[in-house]
Amino acid sequence: MRIARFSIDGNVAFGAVEGEGPDGLVLDIIKGIPFADFELSGTKVPLSKVRLLPPVLPNKVVAFGRNYAEHAAELGHEVPDEPFAFFKPSTSVIGPGDAIAYPSFSQELHHEAELAVVIGRMCREVPRERVKDVILGYTCANDVTARDVQRREKQWARAKGFDTACPLGPWVETDLDPSDLAIQCTVNGEQRQLGRTSQMIHSIEDLIVNISEAMTLLPGDVILTGTPAGVGPLNVGDEVAVTVQGIGTLTNKVIKRG
Amino acid sequence: MRIARFSIDGNVAFGAVEGEGPDGLVLDIIKGIPFADFELSGTKVPLSKVRLLPPVLPNKVVAFGRNYAEHAAELGHEVPDEPFAFFKPSTSVIGPGDAIAYPSFSQELHHEAELAVVIGRMCREVPRERVKDVILGYTCANDVTARDVQRREKQWARAKGFDTACPLGPWVETDLDPSDLAIQCTVNGEQRQLGRTSQMIHSIEDLIVNISEAMTLLPGDVILTGTPAGVGPLNVGDEVAVTVQGIGTLTNKVIKRG
Repeated sequence: MRIARFSIDGNVAFGAVEGEGPDGLVLDIIKGIPFADFELSGTKVPLSKVRLLPPVLPNKVVAFGRNYAEHAAELGHEVPDEPFAFFKPSTSVIGPGDAIAYPSFSQELHHEAELAVVIGRMCREVPRERVKDVILGYTCANDVTARDVQRREKQWARAKGFDTACPLGPWVETDLDPSDLAIQCTVNGEQRQLGRTSQMIHSIEDLIVNISEAMTLLPGDVILTGTPAGVGPLNVGDEVAVTVQGIGTLTNKVIKRG
Repeated sequence: MRIARFSIDGNVAFGAVEGEGPDGLVLDIIKGIPFADFELSGTKVPLSKVRLLPPVLPNKVVAFGRNYAEHAAELGHEVPDEPFAFFKPSTSVIGPGDAIAYPSFSQELHHEAELAVVIGRMCREVPRERVKDVILGYTCANDVTARDVQRREKQWARAKGFDTACPLGPWVETDLDPSDLAIQCTVNGEQRQLGRTSQMIHSIEDLIVNISEAMTLLPGDVILTGTPAGVGPLNVGDEVAVTVQGIGTLTNKVIKRG
């Protein structure tokens, strides 16, 4: 099932995305929230009539660095033996179609297309064999990075945590084998990144065991699993699109911060 | 005014801490929340009858590294020209008297006593001269750190973000000049850290200008301003106390994670 979060007439709701026919997609509104047993209401609205929001409002976004060998190499880094994680704050999250605002303190904004894992239940110290049980589903993410600031500052709160630095969407796909999916990033329709999730150094199981060993994950928390090679600049006016096979496409435009 | 957050009979409230007489401190319960204009209810409860909670529930905790030269030197680091920040997640926050749970993945837990700034209003790109306007007040913090993990992992999400790694309290002092306060850390009554906020490399104004240039701060967000020299080990059974002059003392016991 594809679960979208959207606003319509000022109300926020979740809905199941249905149909891909000539009349376009339709949302069947979910009663309640998708982090517990839920029912579809049967009330349907065309996707074209709603505004899609970030598919979840995470308490925290945990992102893993250098999880694709070719990407580590392109930045001149060694591949770490152990995964390492950093946070992107909830204030950095935007949805599909929202604008990435080029921050004033950077002159080198980069895209990083990633597969995002959405946590479905509160958990800590998740054993490897239980990882599947704590995952609600998967969405697309862009780990937008101020590369110049990242080089200058030892920790990446500003470089990767500024407002609009975490586009997520367009929805959460709950029925998906994430082990070998194509990840693509285009800028103005031109391909920049192309990789497969099978190239991850540390698997999704590894990452969730690693982070949940330290901290409690909450429903709606998001795990970013690293970016494949091909990261590069974003400029004001660009349209950047992240596509993950089996999920969909997350598109955002870059604007000057107002 | 000193504003505490507490639970009594299962309800959570804010209260103004009053009196330091022989009968102990009393809380005058606040109507509403302290992030807007509020009144005291006149209903008073003895501090001894409530359980103090973390004085705020931050959306994010932004912590600055190496902001005291002697501390940077004791860890063998150079002092950075620019401040750099990292996040501690809300799931790491505990209150006064709560236990610090020694994580299973570390053998070298350290205390770091800090002055914490509590943000009072939503803000971004705060000009230096307006910094005072966005601050609600100040509290004590312990930036508990798994030093061995910090050395191993390039980014510090696990080393400084594990559950219970962010004790805050005992309350927020709103009337305080933070420019030259003693900060002390004791372990089992023995002094380990002693410094003064006047030794900060980057001032509170610098730090808030720096982080708010990148991201929106929300009411209740917390800024940790760095730790003075003298950081050292914590062991299971230790009682660690952070005292900031003019605020009070934040005490926590270290237990084995259950």
